[in-house]
Amino acid sequence: MVAQPHPSVAAAVPESDRYAGDAVFELHRGGKIEVTSSVHVRDAADLSKAYTPGVARVCTAIAEDPSLVRRYTWKSNVVAVVTDGTAVLGLGDIGPAASLPVMEGKALLFKEFGGVDSVPIALDCTDVDEFVETVVRLAPTFGGINLEDISAPRCFEIERRLKERLDIPVFHDDQHGTAVVVLAALRNALRVTGKSIEDIRVVISGAGAAGVACARILLQAGVGDLAVVDSKGVLHEDRADLNPVKLSLARDTNTGGLSGRLVDALDGADVFLGVSGGTVPEEAISRMADGSMIFALANPNPEVHPDIAHRHAAVVATGRSDFPNQINNVLAFPGIFRGAFDANASRITEGMKLAAADALAGLITEADLRPDYIIPSPFDARVAPAVATAVATAAEAEGVARA
Amino acid sequence: MVAQPHPSVAAAVPESDRYAGDAVFELHRGGKIEVTSSVHVRDAADLSKAYTPGVARVCTAIAEDPSLVRRYTWKSNVVAVVTDGTAVLGLGDIGPAASLPVMEGKALLFKEFGGVDSVPIALDCTDVDEFVETVVRLAPTFGGINLEDISAPRCFEIERRLKERLDIPVFHDDQHGTAVVVLAALRNALRVTGKSIEDIRVVISGAGAAGVACARILLQAGVGDLAVVDSKGVLHEDRADLNPVKLSLARDTNTGGLSGRLVDALDGADVFLGVSGGTVPEEAISRMADGSMIFALANPNPEVHPDIAHRHAAVVATGRSDFPNQINNVLAFPGIFRGAFDANASRITEGMKLAAADALAGLITEADLRPDYIIPSPFDARVAPAVATAVATAAEAEGVARA
Repeated sequence: MVAQPHPSVAAAVPESDRYAGDAVFELHRGGKIEVTSSVHVRDAADLSKAYTPGVARVCTAIAEDPSLVRRYTWKSNVVAVVTDGTAVLGLGDIGPAASLPVMEGKALLFKEFGGVDSVPIALDCTDVDEFVETVVRLAPTFGGINLEDISAPRCFEIERRLKERLDIPVFHDDQHGTAVVVLAALRNALRVTGKSIEDIRVVISGAGAAGVACARILLQAGVGDLAVVDSKGVLHEDRADLNPVKLSLARDTNTGGLSGRLVDALDGADVFLGVSGGTVPEEAISRMADGSMIFALANPNPEVHPDIAHRHAAVVATGRSDFPNQINNVLAFPGIFRGAFDANASRITEGMKLAAADALAGLITEADLRPDYIIPSPFDARVAPAVATAVATAAEAEGVARA
Repeated sequence: MVAQPHPSVAAAVPESDRYAGDAVFELHRGGKIEVTSSVHVRDAADLSKAYTPGVARVCTAIAEDPSLVRRYTWKSNVVAVVTDGTAVLGLGDIGPAASLPVMEGKALLFKEFGGVDSVPIALDCTDVDEFVETVVRLAPTFGGINLEDISAPRCFEIERRLKERLDIPVFHDDQHGTAVVVLAALRNALRVTGKSIEDIRVVISGAGAAGVACARILLQAGVGDLAVVDSKGVLHEDRADLNPVKLSLARDTNTGGLSGRLVDALDGADVFLGVSGGTVPEEAISRMADGSMIFALANPNPEVHPDIAHRHAAVVATGRSDFPNQINNVLAFPGIFRGAFDANASRITEGMKLAAADALAGLITEADLRPDYIIPSPFDARVAPAVATAVATAAEAEGVARA
């Protein structure tokens, strides 16, 4: 049957509203997502199938054969988008309630781009142990866990422990979604500049969630010379102020033995990847190698304005939609979970992420490739299916598919 | 934009399927609910409003004024349907995964009948402390908590503690949904039989979630003489085997000082309410008072078959849809949460439940009232709006509305 007419939620809201007439706020009124029925209940016969007494047979079947939960519930297609609100966009620790519009936005994009159902779960708990236990308890309901906007270095520990505890995909999008799209963009920037991934020197500004994950995927992809810089300078083993994640990264990077500041590291570098905010002086990027690539991803203010970057670099990308080459996570996460779900993958492996990046990069043909077109638009309808297919295939190849 | 084409989940399921062709299982394939967008993202302009960068302003506004979460997210219209799978239908402790079809069914009914969004949350934790802490951590995301299929007496403690900790409605439907519909049915059964609520003697078989809540609401509604019977016999203060909930109930009921078994208690009783399963012999109900009322709610096998009950009782109700007078929670919970949300109620009070029952009973006019029509059909379109309006009005009257 159709939902009964009833007083709308909006009608109960006081009219005094300082945001009235603001298009962004109007779009958010009442939220951006809803839960709808995919079956109809029009009469007692429908009710007896979708609910009692019929539903009891489905419950019994799942109790006898737990694998059937995937076939006869929505679990196989639903992701929990879990945050604690400690690192929301560039806004920082604004808490779980204020993070909800971002989580709803994520849910909306999962559905619109990947056909994946998802539920925002903003937790009122910032202790790592409590967070992990809470998500483990929630897990029976969900087919995957997308971690979101959790501050570093807590996010690394949370993800690591959840991956150990759960047999469903656990994916911290701020890390891996960004890393996949960055790698895709880099692969095409290399095609444009004619450089080889083994030969380039990369400097990453930022050792938070995105910086660490980008460094790791670039190492996996074959970058040989890579230095990561945090607010105190280049990560190297002799620094006494590094947390365990940064220390581990220092050991695995900076083969050139750099020290000093970001501007020092950029001297002669091929790639600058900014995932930290802050501003890089033009003089520093002017000393990068010929044919350099600048990915200045801070939002809303890129570390180097694209107009300035273009004076010195062969390829420029940002996180903004109003410049060419937007590096946007929405190019990755819907297709990655779509593919993981299609393969009934138990986890999302390094190989699946690399495959996603390659599929994304491969959508741009030689004929179309240009310095200002190294990454597809989020509205390119080929994106999610290509990523999903590559991820599902990689899941099979890596032995984590259970379909 | 429209969701991309992609391999369906169902396509990944092996073809070997012992339930193929079974209509109930086919209806459940892939689950019964989905999360859909209530706004569209067709281009970069849409994306910049629904997601970054526009969404950041909404987050900031909520961080500054937390009450805005109600206006600009779905929180104000979304219920978590939370279970631990310990008392699912009549199936018992089948665990969280196997409970999901019931929780999805509940979510479907919330939406179809009340326009309320809801999310199944089946928790992998049965410890009361852990369960409570988990739900408290989840609460920022939700506007209400519907507890479901949690075993007694744990359910009482869980509900009590969550009501203390949270400022949103917490409602254990197995208790209160049942109680509201039973009271509504009883009010109309009294109209049919011409008896007065103060004068009747009621016997409840079952001291679990439903039995306890029915006893409590009937006492609230003015029933003076009420005895509750568990598997060991009538609850009375001298029994040494009672848990605290049953002991408290023993103190507040059984003013007649009954002891012995169910069949003894039924001698001369006006109302039999069965919420426990088991079978009551015809001989016992034959000794009830003239004009007796029998509500035999066990599913699928009522404690007394209606054909037998009709030989002795003036009014007969069951939990089944294939007999008249079906006492079904779906008559209550969608409207109760709709009304609580419309009033932005901080809790669901006793007064709101009584108002829901009265509104439900009041839908049957004197002209329509008959022994086999004491309660409306779940498909009577007046039900949820009438319940919602009564509940919202009662919330105002009781001072728990915040709208």
